[in-house]
Amino acid sequence: MRVLAKAIAQICRERPGEPCEVLGWVHRIRKLGGITFIILRDRSGILQLLLSETREVDISNLTLESAVQVVGVPAWNEKAPGGVELQVHTLACIARAASDLPYQVNAEPGKIGLEAILDHRALSLRNPKIQAIFKVQSTIIEAFAQYLRGQDFTEIKTSKLVSGGTEGGAELFEVEYFDKKVYLAQSPQIYKQLMVASGLERVFEVAPAYRAEKHDTPRHLNEYVSLDVEMAFIASEQDLIDLEKGILSHIFTEVARKNAGDLALWNAQVPDAQGVSQAPIIPYEEALKIANAESASGNQKPSARIFDINPEVERLLCNWALREKGTDLVFVNEFPRRYRPFYTYPSDTTRTMSFDALFRGLEITTGGRRQHDYKALLEVLPKFGLKEEDIAGYRVFQYGCPPHGGFALGCERLTQKILGLGNVKEASLFPRDRKRIKP
Amino acid sequence: MRVLAKAIAQICRERPGEPCEVLGWVHRIRKLGGITFIILRDRSGILQLLLSETREVDISNLTLESAVQVVGVPAWNEKAPGGVELQVHTLACIARAASDLPYQVNAEPGKIGLEAILDHRALSLRNPKIQAIFKVQSTIIEAFAQYLRGQDFTEIKTSKLVSGGTEGGAELFEVEYFDKKVYLAQSPQIYKQLMVASGLERVFEVAPAYRAEKHDTPRHLNEYVSLDVEMAFIASEQDLIDLEKGILSHIFTEVARKNAGDLALWNAQVPDAQGVSQAPIIPYEEALKIANAESASGNQKPSARIFDINPEVERLLCNWALREKGTDLVFVNEFPRRYRPFYTYPSDTTRTMSFDALFRGLEITTGGRRQHDYKALLEVLPKFGLKEEDIAGYRVFQYGCPPHGGFALGCERLTQKILGLGNVKEASLFPRDRKRIKP
Repeated sequence: MRVLAKAIAQICRERPGEPCEVLGWVHRIRKLGGITFIILRDRSGILQLLLSETREVDISNLTLESAVQVVGVPAWNEKAPGGVELQVHTLACIARAASDLPYQVNAEPGKIGLEAILDHRALSLRNPKIQAIFKVQSTIIEAFAQYLRGQDFTEIKTSKLVSGGTEGGAELFEVEYFDKKVYLAQSPQIYKQLMVASGLERVFEVAPAYRAEKHDTPRHLNEYVSLDVEMAFIASEQDLIDLEKGILSHIFTEVARKNAGDLALWNAQVPDAQGVSQAPIIPYEEALKIANAESASGNQKPSARIFDINPEVERLLCNWALREKGTDLVFVNEFPRRYRPFYTYPSDTTRTMSFDALFRGLEITTGGRRQHDYKALLEVLPKFGLKEEDIAGYRVFQYGCPPHGGFALGCERLTQKILGLGNVKEASLFPRDRKRIKP
Repeated sequence: MRVLAKAIAQICRERPGEPCEVLGWVHRIRKLGGITFIILRDRSGILQLLLSETREVDISNLTLESAVQVVGVPAWNEKAPGGVELQVHTLACIARAASDLPYQVNAEPGKIGLEAILDHRALSLRNPKIQAIFKVQSTIIEAFAQYLRGQDFTEIKTSKLVSGGTEGGAELFEVEYFDKKVYLAQSPQIYKQLMVASGLERVFEVAPAYRAEKHDTPRHLNEYVSLDVEMAFIASEQDLIDLEKGILSHIFTEVARKNAGDLALWNAQVPDAQGVSQAPIIPYEEALKIANAESASGNQKPSARIFDINPEVERLLCNWALREKGTDLVFVNEFPRRYRPFYTYPSDTTRTMSFDALFRGLEITTGGRRQHDYKALLEVLPKFGLKEEDIAGYRVFQYGCPPHGGFALGCERLTQKILGLGNVKEASLFPRDRKRIKP
C-alpha cells in the first residue's frame, strides 16, 4: 500500500526494515560516484531516494518530473531532508516526462517571472512553494465557511447570470444567453440581501465574481473568488466588524494550525487573535488625517494633501496601525455618502454605516449596513442617477425586510497578504486579466 | 438579548418567568374572542405569541409578513406548536409588510405553482417547507467538502471563463471578454485534471457550471452547482465508485443528523450507510438487459427494445435495484467508447472505465478514469472529430501525468432526490432556463 513521503519517518521509527511503496514525481536527480540520489515529491512533501549501484535499478532513461512508483526500505540519514531516506529496491516509471520541460519546476519561484508561472500553471504548481499558496487558500475557504456555520449561517449558491448590474451598468461582462443579453454578476449583493429578507437571516456564499475593469494592476483580477456574508437584525456596521474579526481570527488560527509548513516556505506569519481583536476602527475623516500626517512625516518635501482613500492611503494607514497599535488590520468606517452605493444605510446626512477592512496595506473587505426600507431606498435613487425600474429586484423589501448588512472578503487578496505575494494573480489558479484567457 | 423561537421551551424550563426578546416575521394571525394568537417565524422555526386584551398591545395595523420585535414571558401551552408560547408584553413592528402580499407565504407549497414560487423567490423562501430545501442543500455542500478534506483533498477554485469547450464547441454560452470571445465553462474538467497532474493529486471544487441546452425539462438547469472531484493514482473507476459511496454516505448521515426537521417537512428519508454500501455496480450491457426485462414485465403490450440509457431506463434500473437489492443507488459502469468523451480511459477496444451513478431514478453523477498518456489521447482524437490544437491544454500531460480520474455530482439533482421534489428547479435558489433570467 502507498505511503506518503511525510509518513516515511514514522514507519522507519515504528516498523524498521519494512518495505514501503511511494508514488510521486522526480523532483531532482543527483549522482555522487556510484550512488544516485533522487528527490521524490508527492502531495505531502519530498523524500530522498537512495539508489546504490549494487541494486540493479535502471534509471538511465529517467527524466525530471516523471511520475514514478518506488518500493524501498526507510533508513535514517541526517543529511536527507527530514532526516530519513528510502533505500530503493525497485523503481518503475508510471508516466515519463518528455525531456524538453518548458518550466524548471525545482527552481526558486522568485527567479521565474510571473508570466511564466501563469503560462505553465500545471507545472509551476509542482513547485512546493507555489503549491503552498493554494493549500493555504483551501484552508481559508474551509475556515470561512466553518466559522459562519458555527454562527448559524446557511451557505447559499446564487446565479452568476443577471439581467443588470447592482451598482449601475458599468464594468459588466455581457453574455449571449439564448436570444437575450445577460451579464456576469459583479457580486451576489442583491441575492444575499434577498436571502436575508427571505427569512434565512444569515447567509454566506463562496463564488466567482466578475469585474470588467480594464486596469491591469497587482491588486486586480477580472474574475475573483468572493467570500460573501449577509445578516439580518443588525444595529450598525459595528456588528459586521465584530463578525469579520471573528472570521479572520478563525481563518488565521486554522492557517497557522494546518499550514505551518506552507507558511514557512514563504517565511510568512499570520496575525494572532489578539492582533485581530486590537484592530482599530477609524472614521473616514480621521483616517484621512492620519494618512496626511503619515505622508508628511515620511517625505522630505511637503506632499500633496490626501482627499480620498486610495491604494497609497491604505498602505499609510496600515503602516500607522502596525507602528501605533501593533496590528496588521485596520477598519475604516463612516464613509461619506457619495463614495458608497445607493443601498448603503446612512448614519446621518453625509455619512454611512459602511466600512472597509485593510490588511497589510490592502483593502480586503468592503461592507456595511444596507437600507432595508423600500421608500427610503427610492428617495436616494435620483442622487445615483437610478430609477425605480433599475432596482426592481428590491421591490420585495416592501414586504417586511428587517435591518441587515454584510460584506465581502476577497479570497485571493487575503491569500496574497497572508503569504506576502507581490501580485494578487499569484493567488489565483487561473487568473483572468485583459490579456490572459488561458490556460 | 434575542432568543430564537426554537430556544423558548428551554428558557421556559430553565428560567421560568424570565422575559425574552424574539425577532421574526408574522406568519399567521388568528383572533379568538378577546385573545389574538400570532405565529411568529424566525430562522429557527415558529413560535406562538399570545396577546391578551388586558395588555395594551396595538396590532390593529399589523400585517402578515411584517418583521417584528417582541418581548414576553414563555409559558407552557400544550395546544401551541412545540408546547410553548410567549405571553406578549410589547410588540414593535420593525418593518411593516405592505398589505398586497403577492405570494401567500403561509400556504402549502404544493398548492402554489412552480412559476409563482420562482417568480417570488424571496417570499416563497419564507415558507418553512421551501426554506428547508436550501438548509438541506447547505448541509450537502458542507458534508461533501468535509468528507473530501478528511481524505486529504484540496479545495480549488478554477476559472469559469474558458477559451473553448472541453467536449467540443456545442452548448456553450458566449461571453464578450474585452475584445475577445470566451465561453462559460461547462465543467472544470480540464482544470481539475491539470491540478491532479500539478501534484495536488486530490482536488475538489464547488462551483457553477453552464450548459446552453435548449430543452426545458424537470431534470435540467442551464446553470447548476457542480460538485467536482478528481484524484491521481487510481487503477480504475472502482476507486472512484468507492470514493463516491463514501461521500454519499457522509452526506446522507449529515443531512439526517442536521436536517431531521427539514426532512420531516417533506416526509423524506435519506438512505442509510448500508443502503449506500449495497449499491450494485452494473456493466452497461447488463444494465440494458435489466431495463428491457423491467420494461417488458411492467407493460401489457410488448415494449420497444431499449438500446441506450435514457431517463426512462434510469427509472427502470432504480426500480429494479430497490426491489432486488433494497437500495436507492445504482452504479452503471463499462460505458461504450462512443458514449463517452475523448478523455475517457478505455478498458478494452469498445468499453471504457467510466460510470454513472443513478439515485432514485435520476442520474446524479458521471465520471471515470481519464486517459493520462498524451500520445494515446492524440490517437483517439480523429474518432471525435478533434485535432491536437483543440486539446492544447492537455499538452502538459507530456510531462509526467499519473493515472487519474474523477466525477461530478449535481448538487441540485441530489437535493431534489433527497427531498423528492418534482422539478430540479425547485432545488435552485435562482434557476436559469431558456426563459427565466430573473429574479
